[in-house]
Amino acid sequence: MSKKTELKVAVIQRELSVDVAKNKQKIKDAIKEASKNGAKLIVLQELHNTEYFCHKEDVRFFDLAESIPGPSTVEFGELAKELGVVVVLSLFEKRAAGIYHNSAVVLEKDGSIAGIYRKMHIPDDPGFYEKFYFTQGDIGFKAIDTSVGRLGVLVCWDQWYPEAARLMALDGAEILIYPTAIGWDMNDTSEERRRQLEAWITIQRAHAVANGIPVLVANRAGLDGGVEDSSTFWGNSFICGEQGEFLAQADNQNESIIYASLDLARSDKVRRIWPFFRDRRIDAYGDILKRYGK
Amino acid sequence: MSKKTELKVAVIQRELSVDVAKNKQKIKDAIKEASKNGAKLIVLQELHNTEYFCHKEDVRFFDLAESIPGPSTVEFGELAKELGVVVVLSLFEKRAAGIYHNSAVVLEKDGSIAGIYRKMHIPDDPGFYEKFYFTQGDIGFKAIDTSVGRLGVLVCWDQWYPEAARLMALDGAEILIYPTAIGWDMNDTSEERRRQLEAWITIQRAHAVANGIPVLVANRAGLDGGVEDSSTFWGNSFICGEQGEFLAQADNQNESIIYASLDLARSDKVRRIWPFFRDRRIDAYGDILKRYGK
Repeated sequence: MSKKTELKVAVIQRELSVDVAKNKQKIKDAIKEASKNGAKLIVLQELHNTEYFCHKEDVRFFDLAESIPGPSTVEFGELAKELGVVVVLSLFEKRAAGIYHNSAVVLEKDGSIAGIYRKMHIPDDPGFYEKFYFTQGDIGFKAIDTSVGRLGVLVCWDQWYPEAARLMALDGAEILIYPTAIGWDMNDTSEERRRQLEAWITIQRAHAVANGIPVLVANRAGLDGGVEDSSTFWGNSFICGEQGEFLAQADNQNESIIYASLDLARSDKVRRIWPFFRDRRIDAYGDILKRYGK
Repeated sequence: MSKKTELKVAVIQRELSVDVAKNKQKIKDAIKEASKNGAKLIVLQELHNTEYFCHKEDVRFFDLAESIPGPSTVEFGELAKELGVVVVLSLFEKRAAGIYHNSAVVLEKDGSIAGIYRKMHIPDDPGFYEKFYFTQGDIGFKAIDTSVGRLGVLVCWDQWYPEAARLMALDGAEILIYPTAIGWDMNDTSEERRRQLEAWITIQRAHAVANGIPVLVANRAGLDGGVEDSSTFWGNSFICGEQGEFLAQADNQNESIIYASLDLARSDKVRRIWPFFRDRRIDAYGDILKRYGK
């Protein structure tokens, strides 16, 4: 009766360093391992080619940016083609002089570019000075068609916005994907750190619940090889199902590749018994487009 | 330097029955107990005067409805005044012949009506035939000013909609409040029941996280005194803080009153370090007002 729609996915969690060549090799090795273990969709963490340079504002870091298409889409594209896998990259994009983006690229299994997403919500807080580097995205919240399904790719700070997840789901996304780089300020108390981590897990599981689709989150772990002023990235990459249930979860410090087998037909089943989309009050949501309602 | 803004709140979880007089007495006793223990804001579960009659469609149940203002706002208003507490009621409202609502009423500590909310999202699924009884609300998502703060009151099915929570927060709500009546179909597997309960907790904690304000949830527990076809209400009423952290939680079956001391000044502190409201892309959220984006 029902179409077989199983999809094995992998999320890669790695500690990175200031050495771009080494980072790329590490990521490629991980992609190969994930492919060898049967994954057909592989998700990488945010800005995986480089250290998380946004820990300070320094114009020299703009040299790390590249065009899309560009060197990374070519070399990772070749790997995607060789392995026959769909890969979600996260790149520092140079679009023009003075216009840089924090972008995700979805590579099709033939090595071509299936689509790109430019981070829409740009954070700026101590240790995460992203507004200095990245122009906010202007493509909007558009899901990307691939051979393994229609993907809603968002990036890091987007993860705190239910609007972003909803818009991707309304655009037909079958899976939500978050490359991310988030960590602790170790000066915070352990209670505060626990609250932050739990909040981050909770809100992304809630995007799965609200929209009835799986969520894949790839975070950094560790210290970027001891970069001064770096946050301690808290790992905890995870995969959850259509009801927000955990399918796989990494710990807070180890390098790991986590896997899950998704059944993309399950979303329809979950949405039949929890028909949130049926009852949305689109006639009454207008004030969502306001900065503040009062 | 900072204004003292502590507020003790209570959430009441009770098992109800088909006997309205008994239910009311039980609820009043609980309000008195909560007040005695220092609560200044007291939240009741959904449709607390009656059984959860929506387990079937029967025109006779419309006789349970009442006007607002009406008998319940008068008698609970007298109690609110006597105790000097703000109370959130949940009533089956008869607005006109053929127009009935699932409404919440906020009673001020002087016994007056501070404001009402009419449930905007109306569910309909096996055991929860609410579309038969309730016209969807037409007041919208308006927070209600009281002596203990500006309250964003939503009801049950609304809890699955991030839009509803966001709209209340954008309207200045300092606390989100959910009277609710949700339970298990005991024919479901224990795994499915666990997923449902966790999803329900997760998405409401996420509303706290997304909006940086506390959330109070009052659910029914038990079987409505053994009403035929009734769901098994899963209790688990809870209170969480601005980062979604648990402050108090009831179990899945016992009658209980849970308490927390909220510091309403903390929301601003949390929003300073997690400034989600600063970065909302209101220029790019327009498709939220569509039924489906494709």
